[in-house]
Amino acid sequence: MNKSLGTHIILDMYQCNFEWLDNMTNKEIVGFFSLIVKKNNLAQVGEISYFFKHNSFSIIIALKESHFAIHTWPEKGYVSADVFVCNYTEDNTLKAKKLSEEICNLFNSKTIKKQVIER
Amino acid sequence: MNKSLGTHIILDMYQCNFEWLDNMTNKEIVGFFSLIVKKNNLAQVGEISYFFKHNSFSIIIALKESHFAIHTWPEKGYVSADVFVCNYTEDNTLKAKKLSEEICNLFNSKTIKKQVIER
Repeated sequence: MNKSLGTHIILDMYQCNFEWLDNMTNKEIVGFFSLIVKKNNLAQVGEISYFFKHNSFSIIIALKESHFAIHTWPEKGYVSADVFVCNYTEDNTLKAKKLSEEICNLFNSKTIKKQVIER
Repeated sequence: MNKSLGTHIILDMYQCNFEWLDNMTNKEIVGFFSLIVKKNNLAQVGEISYFFKHNSFSIIIALKESHFAIHTWPEKGYVSADVFVCNYTEDNTLKAKKLSEEICNLFNSKTIKKQVIER
């Protein structure tokens, strides 16, 4: 049982693969990340998406448990992801870890810097 | 000049003062944080707010420079804040630091844990 108020997993992924996103519309991309969050039993209460030039995007999902944020920079091969969950009503650490692993697998990066911060 | 892709300031604030929020509506609270972001020369491109029981709230602001997220837990006296800015087109570190300082001052917490992560 994790006794911290919250667990924040910070992922910095380099030399990422973005090809799997090529045939998806912006709407489909947003829906895809919402679905992953839901599948990991986290409760979405809102979302923001913003698409930049060069197929770069930010998707931020507000969770009852805190938030999930992803920023992609295909021109640098880089993706940042943050999974922050509170452990207030229950220990959500395992859900955060599973979601993080899924995000890592999607981008199949050659180098990952992962930091877990207990807050 | 900060050469990292992004700077992420993580604030965990304990024994916070929430009284200054007492006479504000939810809409005013959201507008207030949007204004602080704008005042610090960061570019808002979207926002989410969610108000829980016990006057607890989450406000997440998507920035062109990445994101700002705040989660308040008055019943624990705790506030988490994240200021994540990229340094892609220019070094935004100073803006992030100033915004963080302003957030700290607002909640006037007795204990602050501050972590600066270069990403």
